[in-house]
Amino acid sequence: MKREGMLVIISGPSGSGKGTVVKELVQKENFALSVSATTRTPRTGEIEGVHYYFYDKETFEKMKNQNELLEWAEFCGNYYGTPKKYVEQKMAEGKNVILEIEVQGALQIKKLYSDCILVFLVPPDIKELEKRLTQRGTEDKQTINRRMNRAIEEMEFVPQYDYIVINDTVEAAAEAICAIVKAESMKSSRNINIKQNFI
Amino acid sequence: MKREGMLVIISGPSGSGKGTVVKELVQKENFALSVSATTRTPRTGEIEGVHYYFYDKETFEKMKNQNELLEWAEFCGNYYGTPKKYVEQKMAEGKNVILEIEVQGALQIKKLYSDCILVFLVPPDIKELEKRLTQRGTEDKQTINRRMNRAIEEMEFVPQYDYIVINDTVEAAAEAICAIVKAESMKSSRNINIKQNFI
Repeated sequence: MKREGMLVIISGPSGSGKGTVVKELVQKENFALSVSATTRTPRTGEIEGVHYYFYDKETFEKMKNQNELLEWAEFCGNYYGTPKKYVEQKMAEGKNVILEIEVQGALQIKKLYSDCILVFLVPPDIKELEKRLTQRGTEDKQTINRRMNRAIEEMEFVPQYDYIVINDTVEAAAEAICAIVKAESMKSSRNINIKQNFI
Repeated sequence: MKREGMLVIISGPSGSGKGTVVKELVQKENFALSVSATTRTPRTGEIEGVHYYFYDKETFEKMKNQNELLEWAEFCGNYYGTPKKYVEQKMAEGKNVILEIEVQGALQIKKLYSDCILVFLVPPDIKELEKRLTQRGTEDKQTINRRMNRAIEEMEFVPQYDYIVINDTVEAAAEAICAIVKAESMKSSRNINIKQNFI
């Protein structure tokens, strides 16, 4: 009997290292990586279907109205969302799907799929976050401070997440998420047919 | 800040390999192994404090009445129970405690400690269970059949357990339980101080 795959959602403040950890996970465990849709213009080097699916506003709104998105949000005049089809198809194939998404979207999806797994990734502490944001060298002091305050605010959402993973190193964080996925697959609530299979 | 250890309870039908898996776990991860108390006479080779704490009936009843047992039961005129002191002391030291115990006792403890982790260990299937029970060579056909029926009955309790682990090999089952313990330690409900620690 083929098991349905699980949906793993990774959130975390800017500078938590979500992107790097997710990349490591996809290589490590053959997760299916869900790609978001957006109406914003592709940046140089961004590839359709890898970084985003790029749609025009009309197409995006049609998807939204036809209930083809798991969640969506508008930022700075552009839409962002998660197409439902890919996620549901991969899960039906028995593949675990991983999705990197911000807090509001994650909580929207949890309402739809109560058994999705919400993982909140954080840097070890605020000092380390400051260091990482500074080392990027792409933002000024003011932006960094804003991101740090935002990170502290976002920590308020942790109790609504299932797990919290401290990103000391990429390797350890990826292993921690693998342990979570392994443990979740053994939950009795996900193995209700165990008695029939046993007999 | 020292974290409190977790209480991991392993149950499973006779022939599921609980004892061997627990032995492997204790070596592997430095779990503290809780030892049961009993009023039955020690068998040859059984060591006080290793296999059981052997008490007379009066002492056991005193412990029971003074609420010094996490759970207890009577089988064939003898008492069996789990002394509370050792478990609470080790958990306070930050050590994870492992306890191998039958279903009724496990569910008693879950009522006291809602955040203990209940793991149900099963052989891959009923054929494999029969094979293992037969290979022991210690029981007749009738006893084996009784144990197999009992195993099927016990599967009814799986939904009250948190996790189900299929014991294909001792090594894999021990690793599976380690993943469960690792994942549980990252549950947001067990990390309510995370925001303070972060700042």
